[in-house]
Amino acid sequence: MFTITAPDTTQLAQVRDKINHKTKPLGALGQLEDIATQLAMIQQSDELVISQPHLLVFAGDHGIAQHGVSIAPSEVTTQMVMNFLAGGAAINCFCRTSDMALQVIDAGTKLEPDDHPQLIKQRLGAGTADFSRQPAMSRDTVTQGLMYGAEAVARVHQQGCNLVGFGEMGIGNTSSAAALMAALLQLPAEACVGRGTGITDAQYEQKLSLIRQALLQHEAAFDDPLSILACLGGFEITQITGGMLKAAELQMTVLVDGFIATAAALIATAIQPEARHYFLYCHCSEEAGHQRMLEHLAAKPLLDLGLRLGEGTGAALALPLIRAACEFYNNMASFSEAGVSV
Amino acid sequence: MFTITAPDTTQLAQVRDKINHKTKPLGALGQLEDIATQLAMIQQSDELVISQPHLLVFAGDHGIAQHGVSIAPSEVTTQMVMNFLAGGAAINCFCRTSDMALQVIDAGTKLEPDDHPQLIKQRLGAGTADFSRQPAMSRDTVTQGLMYGAEAVARVHQQGCNLVGFGEMGIGNTSSAAALMAALLQLPAEACVGRGTGITDAQYEQKLSLIRQALLQHEAAFDDPLSILACLGGFEITQITGGMLKAAELQMTVLVDGFIATAAALIATAIQPEARHYFLYCHCSEEAGHQRMLEHLAAKPLLDLGLRLGEGTGAALALPLIRAACEFYNNMASFSEAGVSV
Repeated sequence: MFTITAPDTTQLAQVRDKINHKTKPLGALGQLEDIATQLAMIQQSDELVISQPHLLVFAGDHGIAQHGVSIAPSEVTTQMVMNFLAGGAAINCFCRTSDMALQVIDAGTKLEPDDHPQLIKQRLGAGTADFSRQPAMSRDTVTQGLMYGAEAVARVHQQGCNLVGFGEMGIGNTSSAAALMAALLQLPAEACVGRGTGITDAQYEQKLSLIRQALLQHEAAFDDPLSILACLGGFEITQITGGMLKAAELQMTVLVDGFIATAAALIATAIQPEARHYFLYCHCSEEAGHQRMLEHLAAKPLLDLGLRLGEGTGAALALPLIRAACEFYNNMASFSEAGVSV
Repeated sequence: MFTITAPDTTQLAQVRDKINHKTKPLGALGQLEDIATQLAMIQQSDELVISQPHLLVFAGDHGIAQHGVSIAPSEVTTQMVMNFLAGGAAINCFCRTSDMALQVIDAGTKLEPDDHPQLIKQRLGAGTADFSRQPAMSRDTVTQGLMYGAEAVARVHQQGCNLVGFGEMGIGNTSSAAALMAALLQLPAEACVGRGTGITDAQYEQKLSLIRQALLQHEAAFDDPLSILACLGGFEITQITGGMLKAAELQMTVLVDGFIATAAALIATAIQPEARHYFLYCHCSEEAGHQRMLEHLAAKPLLDLGLRLGEGTGAALALPLIRAACEFYNNMASFSEAGVSV
């Protein structure tokens, strides 16, 4: 479905050399040097540019939520979509301070939100089926979802965007993400399931038990990532996966947010491993399994602020660091330019 | 010298209540909630404002550098001052992307830089004396340095600035900062001395041995922080200390950068413990002793990017996170405003 190639690394030594001649001790800018190098490989240019950065928030509901595995009912997904459209959520605040455009995509909430000029409807249904009892969605729905996500990215790319962050809203989606993680990484449920945005002990036990049950039930289908997505995924997670793969195909920089977005990145890289070169991990979530996901991806996230909100908040907060990396790469003087003794 | 009072905490419960009613799970914005709370206490206002943020870089040289304890000779301090003035250093890049004004202060470099319209000269001498043999400066010089630093802050405050970051440049100043740390926290030299910006094993042993010698020699003077500063400090560290104390007196927010700026914060809080309420720790440096300094200060820094450059780079990089905290505090909707079910 997607044709993704790793960036050409012919210029890698030259890029490193450019960084090493900047007026600073070797390696003294730490992870910012890694980001500049990664962007130089993606953009294949001596002048790094962040053009029209967008944050896409995908919303979707989950059948599993009917068991009360979250702090809020599914209706809150739609209420939060309206909050995004009104500009009142955390992600609106952080997109404003990071100068990032925000788009809201209804990937399939339980209650359909009213039409709104800023709302993109790409509904795959009124929430997924309860994956503790049956597959969350069909294989055809997965395919449709990947295409929808890809289209959302292709549209912003057409407008000149070369960096896209992915966020989500969906009551119950840490359950789906934890189940996807367990299936993909072949880990026991307890290594993957956390407390989401703050459930009680009893809710946690219930969540764990439902996910164990789901993993047993769908085990036979765990031979490929698309089947895993059909069995355990969410509409928003599926569209994010497609969006990430399309962005990699278009050689855009992809900002990966927290636990749920990283679950999508896990699936995306399982489908197309070369996509990983375009992914930049923005923060480490408080959600229990996220650290382990990041280790599996050999990712060193930029921020670790104790966030556990989703919406793409970590991605929006990380963008200024990426701008800083581009600026030093483009405009910091070399020893010879500045007349500084080495 | 400075009259510093802790912020009034009468409104603390109300501030926390405001944050807890925002459309997010309790505590889900992690450290950004702590920052918003701290700024609300400092500013005593329901609307947080960052006005005319400034980064002040203080440059000074160190007599100890003659022993080759750094990767570069003292001349590089002045060369880097010229680089700051030309806009070519890392701190220039990050002040540009963080929209922060930069001021460069010559606190006493070995080679006096040429006059420049953007350079503020507050020279305490042509570098400190070699503290492995004699006190780095006199008590009178310490007093003068604190006043100079205070004046630099008072000037930007007069221009409407309410947030100030402190950076430094000074070949050999990790030696001074490590010695100050050892004397103030009563730690052995090896717990405080690191590799600065990247010295060899032999240089490290030499640095450690000189600092041990200095600690023994000046031990009798370690009964108060100003004497410690006179024995082991630097001109830039002294002026930063005065600047931090003045900023706390003026109820400004203080951004503390890495190892050297944190050494100044250690002295400042030893002189006036209430200053701590105004200090915000921006990043954890790669320099060995920094983590321990931060623990002593009970500080949880915002960033951990493997930086070891100084100049105030960590402070400039952290500013967008502080802006994000203000924005969510001011403009994120409450559950009732957004019509979201709790």
